[in-house]
Amino acid sequence: MAWREDGGALVQDYEFADFAVAMVFVNKVAKVAEAMGHHPDILIHGWNKVRLTLTTHSEGGVTDLDRRLAEAIDRL
Amino acid sequence: MAWREDGGALVQDYEFADFAVAMVFVNKVAKVAEAMGHHPDILIHGWNKVRLTLTTHSEGGVTDLDRRLAEAIDRL
Repeated sequence: MAWREDGGALVQDYEFADFAVAMVFVNKVAKVAEAMGHHPDILIHGWNKVRLTLTTHSEGGVTDLDRRLAEAIDRL
Repeated sequence: MAWREDGGALVQDYEFADFAVAMVFVNKVAKVAEAMGHHPDILIHGWNKVRLTLTTHSEGGVTDLDRRLAEAIDRL
């Protein structure tokens, strides 16, 4: 999957069949994030789109923790 | 609850005890939105904050549908 670096964060955009499918994905991401103790910003917009933004605020940018979270999300 | 009008949308910010509680709220909002067939933009950020943005894209601004959705969310 294609994460891009944007403003000190890893960003990826997703598009789904509908809002319900988008919410299923968001809840899977939330479960992975809780398990890792590292939480992405999640924007659900336009009824079927999701944008994930991963950064480590305490470090002011992308860290290995963000990269590991991105890899875990890619495995969903 | 205090919705503000901002750029042709109704916007409200929420803060929760933690990410899990924020996700419970988001899923309740999603259920209400599905029932109404009208979907807010939902931003989950800073591990415990949620921003809801309600607008009717086809009308280019806030409509009664947005106000009804806001009222339904207030009842959660």
